[in-house]
Amino acid sequence: MASSKSKNILERLDAGELIIGDGSYIFTLERRGYVKCGHMTPEASVEYPEAVEALAVEYARAGADITQTFTFYSRDIGTPEDVNLTCREINQASCDIAKKVAKKYDTIVAGGIVYTAVFKQTRNKKDVQDELREGLEVLIENDVDLIIVEYFRNIIEMEWALELALSYGKPVAATMCIGPKGDQDGVSAAECGVRMAKAGAKIVGVNCLFDPFITLETVKIMKDGLKAAGLNPYLMCQPLGYRTPDGGSYGWIELPEYPYAVEPRTVTRFEVAKFAREAYDLGVRVIGGCCGMESVHIRAIAEELAEEHGRLPEASRKSDLDLSVLGRKANLGRREYLGKGTKDFWWNLVPATGRPLSASLHRQENPQTVSKSVLN
Amino acid sequence: MASSKSKNILERLDAGELIIGDGSYIFTLERRGYVKCGHMTPEASVEYPEAVEALAVEYARAGADITQTFTFYSRDIGTPEDVNLTCREINQASCDIAKKVAKKYDTIVAGGIVYTAVFKQTRNKKDVQDELREGLEVLIENDVDLIIVEYFRNIIEMEWALELALSYGKPVAATMCIGPKGDQDGVSAAECGVRMAKAGAKIVGVNCLFDPFITLETVKIMKDGLKAAGLNPYLMCQPLGYRTPDGGSYGWIELPEYPYAVEPRTVTRFEVAKFAREAYDLGVRVIGGCCGMESVHIRAIAEELAEEHGRLPEASRKSDLDLSVLGRKANLGRREYLGKGTKDFWWNLVPATGRPLSASLHRQENPQTVSKSVLN
Amino acid sequence: MASSKSKNILERLDAGELIIGDGSYIFTLERRGYVKCGHMTPEASVEYPEAVEALAVEYARAGADITQTFTFYSRDIGTPEDVNLTCREINQASCDIAKKVAKKYDTIVAGGIVYTAVFKQTRNKKDVQDELREGLEVLIENDVDLIIVEYFRNIIEMEWALELALSYGKPVAATMCIGPKGDQDGVSAAECGVRMAKAGAKIVGVNCLFDPFITLETVKIMKDGLKAAGLNPYLMCQPLGYRTPDGGSYGWIELPEYPYAVEPRTVTRFEVAKFAREAYDLGVRVIGGCCGMESVHIRAIAEELAEEHGRLPEASRKSDLDLSVLGRKANLGRREYLGKGTKDFWWNLVPATGRPLSASLHRQENPQTVSKSVLN
Amino acid sequence: MASSKSKNILERLDAGELIIGDGSYIFTLERRGYVKCGHMTPEASVEYPEAVEALAVEYARAGADITQTFTFYSRDIGTPEDVNLTCREINQASCDIAKKVAKKYDTIVAGGIVYTAVFKQTRNKKDVQDELREGLEVLIENDVDLIIVEYFRNIIEMEWALELALSYGKPVAATMCIGPKGDQDGVSAAECGVRMAKAGAKIVGVNCLFDPFITLETVKIMKDGLKAAGLNPYLMCQPLGYRTPDGGSYGWIELPEYPYAVEPRTVTRFEVAKFAREAYDLGVRVIGGCCGMESVHIRAIAEELAEEHGRLPEASRKSDLDLSVLGRKANLGRREYLGKGTKDFWWNLVPATGRPLSASLHRQENPQTVSKSVLN
Repeated sequence: MASSKSKNILERLDAGELIIGDGSYIFTLERRGYVKCGHMTPEASVEYPEAVEALAVEYARAGADITQTFTFYSRDIGTPEDVNLTCREINQASCDIAKKVAKKYDTIVAGGIVYTAVFKQTRNKKDVQDELREGLEVLIENDVDLIIVEYFRNIIEMEWALELALSYGKPVAATMCIGPKGDQDGVSAAECGVRMAKAGAKIVGVNCLFDPFITLETVKIMKDGLKAAGLNPYLMCQPLGYRTPDGGSYGWIELPEYPYAVEPRTVTRFEVAKFAREAYDLGVRVIGGCCGMESVHIRAIAEELAEEHGRLPEASRKSDLDLSVLGRKANLGRREYLGKGTKDFWWNLVPATGRPLSASLHRQENPQTVSKSVLN
Repeated sequence: MASSKSKNILERLDAGELIIGDGSYIFTLERRGYVKCGHMTPEASVEYPEAVEALAVEYARAGADITQTFTFYSRDIGTPEDVNLTCREINQASCDIAKKVAKKYDTIVAGGIVYTAVFKQTRNKKDVQDELREGLEVLIENDVDLIIVEYFRNIIEMEWALELALSYGKPVAATMCIGPKGDQDGVSAAECGVRMAKAGAKIVGVNCLFDPFITLETVKIMKDGLKAAGLNPYLMCQPLGYRTPDGGSYGWIELPEYPYAVEPRTVTRFEVAKFAREAYDLGVRVIGGCCGMESVHIRAIAEELAEEHGRLPEASRKSDLDLSVLGRKANLGRREYLGKGTKDFWWNLVPATGRPLSASLHRQENPQTVSKSVLN
Repeated sequence: MASSKSKNILERLDAGELIIGDGSYIFTLERRGYVKCGHMTPEASVEYPEAVEALAVEYARAGADITQTFTFYSRDIGTPEDVNLTCREINQASCDIAKKVAKKYDTIVAGGIVYTAVFKQTRNKKDVQDELREGLEVLIENDVDLIIVEYFRNIIEMEWALELALSYGKPVAATMCIGPKGDQDGVSAAECGVRMAKAGAKIVGVNCLFDPFITLETVKIMKDGLKAAGLNPYLMCQPLGYRTPDGGSYGWIELPEYPYAVEPRTVTRFEVAKFAREAYDLGVRVIGGCCGMESVHIRAIAEELAEEHGRLPEASRKSDLDLSVLGRKANLGRREYLGKGTKDFWWNLVPATGRPLSASLHRQENPQTVSKSVLN
Repeated sequence: MASSKSKNILERLDAGELIIGDGSYIFTLERRGYVKCGHMTPEASVEYPEAVEALAVEYARAGADITQTFTFYSRDIGTPEDVNLTCREINQASCDIAKKVAKKYDTIVAGGIVYTAVFKQTRNKKDVQDELREGLEVLIENDVDLIIVEYFRNIIEMEWALELALSYGKPVAATMCIGPKGDQDGVSAAECGVRMAKAGAKIVGVNCLFDPFITLETVKIMKDGLKAAGLNPYLMCQPLGYRTPDGGSYGWIELPEYPYAVEPRTVTRFEVAKFAREAYDLGVRVIGGCCGMESVHIRAIAEELAEEHGRLPEASRKSDLDLSVLGRKANLGRREYLGKGTKDFWWNLVPATGRPLSASLHRQENPQTVSKSVLN
């Protein structure tokens, strides 16, 4: 694998490239036994580095152009009591892993910062920037290629974070974790998009909290707002790997199934392929995943957009890309494979849930994509 | 971790121990990009040994007492065309990995053999045993601790396989892949159980094809048959990690969602805990998983039965075992965690599917657990 | 309308005729405001005779060959407190209405008797027959054409009832209200069928409690039992107009939705047409309905089996029998009617429920057609 | 029953009265065999007047203050070919029936006019008013108490209709058949409300096409618009008796189940009671039903709002109003009635559908209350 690609995401986007992000760390490593349920902190980078690296490798093999550092998502959340590691020790180990994988798979190293707890308490710009600076320092010391200012729920805090992040001279991407109805202060998704762009972010979008299709709906609103304002940043989205039509204003976090019973909502690879196609058609040029979006899903994005991406991912070697393997079984007369050798079959299949006791949706106080009247 | 446990499963069962099996290899590694969709062959043991080992480690950490070799499940299925490895090379590499992990985690090494294609063609005992012998040889050479004669769909072929497997003097477990309505020739599950025991298997049961609860139903029928026959072998089950109430006579294989859209059917950790409790109460003493049963599920079994098992798994270090982490969040008044700190909440939760376009079930020609009239 | 048909159901069955029964009285009149919820007693025959007659007329127009008297279904259930009518007064009024409608529409007048409360208390034959005699007297005095011994849950009580009913020399039909798993004492449906026939019933079958398709399943078991015993009575069924795959041993009565929230389970006219075809193909020759089976459903039976029945019902004048009316709308290019002019469209349509908060099934202690494992 | 109530709806509303409308004629009589599927024309008023009268009586007994004439809903739709009646003959017979029932039950006679086909063709005011005049004439000749200008899909046509209807000096109510997203020309529901009020309608609102809760959502938007415009007409709504969360811009008409397989969507009496309460709380003072809203539902409205309405309906005599009848059965230890004697049980019950093959929703091009992303 030739190591010749630019590490500057903006250069590559300017050159018309599609950039594929990586997927879920916290939730996937939790399921594998390396992250503590509830805490959801990244001490595994020190404790079980080979498990973190194995996951980063999965994403790179699946076609991701970005390797995100598995750094602390917020200083406020304490590690489990039996962990005696400083935030800096953990984050340094996380950077080490990301850089090792990036070197091998020629990916862009990205480090992220997220919303602070202090914002809610004081709404003070200095407090917020002081806290975020701590998280940024280790990323800068490690000379990451890209800073992702992500998972912000209030555009005002995002603006403060962007001001700080941009001061280091690195490429910066900005994604809010909001639904179609906008941020926690009631600022519309359109205005959020405009304000991120005006704050200097060259890449803006949405991550986490909602499912792929709802996230695209939010991105569409942002895009329309940006267009109306005469702005044209690159669009990015990294949605959940779970279907959440009944998500509230805080997305899936408000669902009863969060965090231990979300499996029935898991997206299929073909749903993700549809999402990827719709995202690209909408103009999104940085497409990745958040919680629950695993390597099989990232590969589905990379395979659906292989032509646009200019390559097939390494892991496609193990994929029945053209469905000919299944098709051969069908041709042998095996009833259970009939039709399964065609793309139409899988794209049109609405999967049954196997759950006759389960409803489709839950009631919600502030549903984002379904009228309250539907949940009556 | 003291390496003092007996590797003889029968001795441990005789001593009253509960033995926990490991989980899914093929389907889990397929999702991780290391097994080719459609082929489902284990060349990854040679090609990506660290990925196979990482998964085996996950299961051991999750509480599995058994590490199963990731050997060929059938000679008949060819590897992908770009793979130039012999069956023996692959199986040897698989044994190497299993033995390495077993040494570190003090687990029992188990090797499996499965139904043959030649059985359907000739129904000839010699042909079947000749083919199975090939698969057994490498296991014997590697001195595995346990032979699992599994995934047989006809009791007559199982009897031939057992005759052969028992001839090596190793402990042997026997599991049919059948539903409550019995084997492919119409032999009842009860008679299958009796005949496996009479053929000399000290451990008998069911694996794959159906969901945990349906599998227990089949085991229950076996148990009743064994009791009526005055037989008392140990019971074992290793079900799917997917809900399949609408499975046909060939289980989930007949579902439209197989193999690429089964995600909505994925079991939750709490469903698996219920299954583990019911299995134990039914008298099952070897409890593991098959396709789709991942390490989070094996840990759920090991945690639910921690007292019976005599220990907590290593991975419980990263589990909110008593839900106190979630409970603290609820106590801080965070609305989205209300109630989630109690076991009752999770055991009583029927998860919504997030899929308003999806039905619960599919039509089936030969449903196993639902009347045809229900699917009219 | 020529009044020339025989009133003797057995003569007509012997001549190869298909006989169509009528539908729901109690539940339909409850919804119309004439029967008291909970009590479910027939005082409306005295209080609102025109409403009862209007319903009987609906069934006759829909193709029913039978007009059943809206008589007391059991002496034990008291009328509402504000009703000062004797059982005899009510039943006489009911017979008057049925006879009036039967005269106009040339239908067979049928009177029914059902299980007694005293059976449970004493299990004494004389007690049971004494009570049933009272109900039968008014029917005999009114010279009904057919006695239906229906809604019995124990075959032993049914045998006592049949002995009595047959003593009057009238044609007698016998239908148990049981599911596929048999009567309340655990007697199989097959044995129930045989014992009804041996007790002298020339028409045997199943009514109420379960949905059309489940009821056919029970009838099929009866038929197989009768065949094995060398018996060949006519088969009859009058199922619910609600889908009840999750019915317990007491059918829909055990469902949480009973009696006030069963609407989502209501069968469509096309489901009923399918049922009618399957029933006829199974050999059932008296096909009608019980609770929830309204005139639109009876018409669907009569239209589906028009050829076998030898006529179209009067109400078909108002039916888009060949779907040509809908077809013309489709041909005018109205998008919302596309395809709706074909029978295939409606027979293949699996209707959505419009209820994203609703599950398909409820948990049940003793499910009749679904394994308990499905409801786990 | 004292015949002393004013027939002037506005006087009664001004006096603070709640007015309850009646329910479904066309769809209910179709199910009873008196209206031809597809045509949906009211010739039954001549052909089967007793059936039409019986239904009008049901509504009056259920608590309706209004008896609507079963007149032609549009001149454009031809009667079935075997009907040789003029529009005037049919409408006169319909008025005769309504007036007869109104006299007996002391109800307000209301006649309606609906959208014209000519509007689509010419969008010419004179053409539209000429056609509507014909429909209005017979109502005026019969001196109806109230004109309902209903089922209009374009506010401009509604304005023309109102101008004409108001010219006769009768009380006029105006209801659009639109969803939350507004009329067919894209005019918002808020503006529709304002324009109806400005056109002179003292009662404005929504009827048909959508389910009760979605209809309230539309009414809420109208109310907010009216408030912003400083207008304060009385609010009215007459929704479907079917749940249609997946309705398109043309409501349930666009659903595959329309018109022959909508049964699973039928509302329960407790859903209607919730709707009635929400409607009243929203300020709606004329509450009735449209297609599928049967007398059991109208009674549910009248019982839920008995205090506000000042009386219980006559049909409540046959209602287990306080659930004490069911409660007594529960108290006798009958397991299947446990809890059913309490209002909480029924208000909290989310009914299962009994339909494991059915999805909750259908895909729609222009969903009104669910994001397209939900239906992806």
